[in-house]
Amino acid sequence: MRPETDPPSRDDATGGAGESPAPTLLTDLYQLTMLQAYLERGMEAPAVFEFFVRQLPERRSFLIAAGLEQLLDYLETLRFSPRELGWMESTARFSPDFLRRLERFRFTGDVDAIPEGTVCFAEQPIVRITAPLPEAQFIESRLINLLHFETLIASKAARCVLAAGGRTLVDFGLRRAHGAEAGALAARAAYLAGFHGTATVEAGRRFGIPLFGTMAHSFVQAHRSELDAFRHFVDCFPGDNTLLIDTYDTLQGARTVVALAQELRPSGKRLRAVRIDSGDLAQAARDVRAILDQGGCGDVGIFVSGNLDESAIADLVVRRVPVDGFGVGTRLDVSADAPTLDVVYKLQEYAGRATRKRSAGKATWPGRKQVERHRDAQGVMTGDAVVLEEEPHCGERLLRPVMRSGRRVAPSPTLTVAREHARRELASLPPPLRSLESRAAFTVDISSRIRELAVAVDTA
Amino acid sequence: MRPETDPPSRDDATGGAGESPAPTLLTDLYQLTMLQAYLERGMEAPAVFEFFVRQLPERRSFLIAAGLEQLLDYLETLRFSPRELGWMESTARFSPDFLRRLERFRFTGDVDAIPEGTVCFAEQPIVRITAPLPEAQFIESRLINLLHFETLIASKAARCVLAAGGRTLVDFGLRRAHGAEAGALAARAAYLAGFHGTATVEAGRRFGIPLFGTMAHSFVQAHRSELDAFRHFVDCFPGDNTLLIDTYDTLQGARTVVALAQELRPSGKRLRAVRIDSGDLAQAARDVRAILDQGGCGDVGIFVSGNLDESAIADLVVRRVPVDGFGVGTRLDVSADAPTLDVVYKLQEYAGRATRKRSAGKATWPGRKQVERHRDAQGVMTGDAVVLEEEPHCGERLLRPVMRSGRRVAPSPTLTVAREHARRELASLPPPLRSLESRAAFTVDISSRIRELAVAVDTA
Repeated sequence: MRPETDPPSRDDATGGAGESPAPTLLTDLYQLTMLQAYLERGMEAPAVFEFFVRQLPERRSFLIAAGLEQLLDYLETLRFSPRELGWMESTARFSPDFLRRLERFRFTGDVDAIPEGTVCFAEQPIVRITAPLPEAQFIESRLINLLHFETLIASKAARCVLAAGGRTLVDFGLRRAHGAEAGALAARAAYLAGFHGTATVEAGRRFGIPLFGTMAHSFVQAHRSELDAFRHFVDCFPGDNTLLIDTYDTLQGARTVVALAQELRPSGKRLRAVRIDSGDLAQAARDVRAILDQGGCGDVGIFVSGNLDESAIADLVVRRVPVDGFGVGTRLDVSADAPTLDVVYKLQEYAGRATRKRSAGKATWPGRKQVERHRDAQGVMTGDAVVLEEEPHCGERLLRPVMRSGRRVAPSPTLTVAREHARRELASLPPPLRSLESRAAFTVDISSRIRELAVAVDTA
Repeated sequence: MRPETDPPSRDDATGGAGESPAPTLLTDLYQLTMLQAYLERGMEAPAVFEFFVRQLPERRSFLIAAGLEQLLDYLETLRFSPRELGWMESTARFSPDFLRRLERFRFTGDVDAIPEGTVCFAEQPIVRITAPLPEAQFIESRLINLLHFETLIASKAARCVLAAGGRTLVDFGLRRAHGAEAGALAARAAYLAGFHGTATVEAGRRFGIPLFGTMAHSFVQAHRSELDAFRHFVDCFPGDNTLLIDTYDTLQGARTVVALAQELRPSGKRLRAVRIDSGDLAQAARDVRAILDQGGCGDVGIFVSGNLDESAIADLVVRRVPVDGFGVGTRLDVSADAPTLDVVYKLQEYAGRATRKRSAGKATWPGRKQVERHRDAQGVMTGDAVVLEEEPHCGERLLRPVMRSGRRVAPSPTLTVAREHARRELASLPPPLRSLESRAAFTVDISSRIRELAVAVDTA
C-alpha cells in the first residue's frame, strides 16, 4: 500500500479561503448579544485575547500546535451573509442599527501565533489576537473550535509517529470522526504531525495529502470467492493494490495471495501488500509473513489496522512484529483517550488595561505574553518561559506575527514545510517527553513580571 | 435564562438538502477504487447493507437513533461535481470511462430505518440500504460518519435528560466540538433527545432549535466593574438576561445582582437568572440562592455550567441543590466518556445470496433483517428480537420504509415530532436501563432462522 496519488502538484495547497467556509452564525448566541452591547456603547478599544491550554490531559506530555491556517482563512473571509442577516432580523432579537452595522463587519485585527507543527505546552499562549473588542470577542467560538480540534489530533498523531519508528502511518478515521469537517481536518492534522497520508479523498484534494486505500470486506463478500475478488481487484489496479485477507480466514487469505502471485507471475503484474484488520495482529502478521516468504512473496508488504492507537503500535514495534504500515482510524480521529483539551480564549488586556479572571480553579495570568524557548547545544528543548511581550529577549521567541490589520503578513508555509518543521520539533524533544505512558514534566516558567502584574491587577 | 428566540416559526425545519452539503469526495479512497471495479465488471445487482452497533460502550444501556434526516439529505443530493471529477482526472488514477459514468452517478436505492428518537440496542440494524452494489457500497463512509455521530450524541444527551429530572438543559458545546458540522449536529441530536435548546446560533437557524445565551467572563472584565457590566447588559437586553457572576468572586457577584435588582425596581426592568461556571457548584448555588432570596430576588433563577455531564447533573439533582438549569458543553458534544460507538455497515446479501464476514471477533449475522419490539401492558419495553425480514410478524416492527428509488416516501417527521417520540421512548424504558452507572442488560434475541442462515452461508 502506497500513496495512490502522485506527490501533490499543488503541495502548497493550504485548503484556503472559499473552501465551503462554515457559516458565520456557527457561533454562540452570547457572541452576538455581547457584540450588540459593545457596538451600542462604543466599546471598541483594542482588546488582547490569548488562546491557550490550561492543563494537559493525563497522557500528554506536549502538544503540537495546529489549525492556524484554517483560523486565518476564517478571519480573512469573515462576514455576515444577507441570508444570515435576514434570519437574524426575523428573530426580532437584535436592533436594526446593529444588523446594519453587521453588514460591514470584518476582522481588521492582528494575529500573533506559534507556527503550526511547533511543540507547545500548557499555560502558553498559542495564538494571540489584538483587535477592536467587538471583533476580538466575536471570533472566540470558531477560533476555539478550529484550533482545539487540529491541535488535539496533531498531538495524538505525534504520539503515533513516535511509536511507529518510521513505519508507514495512514489515517483511516473518517467514518467515525465527528462529522465532515472533523474527517477532513483530522487527516490534515495527522499529516502535519508526520503521518504519511490518509484514506480521506477530500483531504487529498483540498490539502494535497497523499492518499492510500485498500478494499472493504464487502468487496470480498460480493465475489464468488476470495481468489476471484483479489484477481478482479488486481486486474483493475495492477500497479497498486493492497489485498484485505481477513474476511473469512486470515491464513487461508495469505495462501490465496501466494496462489494469485504465482498465477500472475507470467503477466508481470505484482501484488503490493496485504492488510490484516482483525484478530491477534501480532500473531497473524508473523504467520502471514511466513506464508508469504515461503511462497516467494517476500516483496509483499503487511499492513495492519483495527482499533490501533499509539500504545498498540508501540507494542507491535517493540515486539519486532513484521509490519510495514499501520492504518489508524477511530482512536486517532477522536483522540479517544483524551477527546478534548482544556483550551480557553481569555481577555488579557482592554484599552491598555491588563485584566484577568479569578474564578475558583480557573484564574488566568494577565497581560500580553510571549513564549521563550531554551535549548541545549544539540538543539534539545530544555525549558520555556512565559514572559510579557515587552520584557527583554533572552531566547527563541515562539509567537510570531502572522496577520496585521486583517491580512496575512506573508503567504503561509505550505503543509509540506509545516510537516518538516513538526518533524524537527519531535526530534528535539527531551527523551522523557517521548514516553507514551505518563505525563512527563517540562519546565514552563511564568516570569516574575507577569506575577507582579497579576498582583497589581487584583489590587487595582 | 430562557430561549432567546421565539418558538421557531419554521419548526418543521429539518436542515434539509442544499445546506452546504459535504463534498462527495468526503469518502475513503477505497470506495472510489471499488466503485470503478464494480462498474467495470458490471457488478450492479442489488446489494443489502445494514448499519448497526456491534457492542455498546461500558456505560451505555441503550442508544437513541439519530442522523437519519442528514443521511436522507445526503442520498437525495448525491452527485459528483464537475470540479471533483476534474480533480479525479488530474490524479490519473481512474479510467476515463469510469469518470464519465460518475457524471450520472446517483443514489437510486431504498432505505429502511428505525425512526429518529427510537431507543435501540447493539446487533440491531438501525438503517438498511438496498441498492445496486456500486451505490450501496459507495455511500458507506459518509453514511457511517453521519449516523454514528448523531446517534452517539443523542444517546449521551438522553442520559443527561434522565438525570436532570425536568430541569432546563442547554447545549453549550460548540467550541470544543470536533469542527463545524459536529457543533451544529450535536445541538440537533441533543435537542432530539430532550434538551431544551442550544447556544449554537447556526443550529437555531438551520433546525429551528430554541437558542439560549448568557455572557462571557471577558464581558465582565472589559467593564470598569462587575456592576457596570451587569447594568450595561440589562440595558441592552431588558427582557432576557442571565448574568455571569463568577468572574471574580461568586458570592460578591450575587450581592451585586441584588444591588442591581434594587436599583432597577423603579424602572420595571427585571433580572432573569444568574450563571455560575466554576468552583464547588453545589455549595455556590446554595449560597447564591440564599443571597438572592434574602435580597428579594426569589424569582431570579440559577443556571450552572462547567465540566457538567450526566453524573454531575444527577449528583446536583439528588442532593436537591437549588439549580434551575444546566449548560452542558464539552462532555456532551464529544461524548467524553465514550467518544465513539462500535458502528459498522456490512454487506448482508448480494444478488439474492446471503453473506457474512467471519473475521475473528468481528463476525456478522447474514441476511435482510428486521427488529421486533415487545412491550408490557403499560408500554414498557420487555425485549427485542432480530429476525429475518421475511419471517412472520409477532410484534412491533422498528424498521420502516423511508426511501424508495432514491426519494423519500413521505415528508420526514419534523424535529419537534421526533423529539416527542424520543420523550415517549425514554418514558417506556425498563427501570434498570435508566441507571447511569453501569450497563444494564436488555434481551435482544437473534432468531433461529438467522442462526440457521449463518450456518448455511458458512457451508455453502
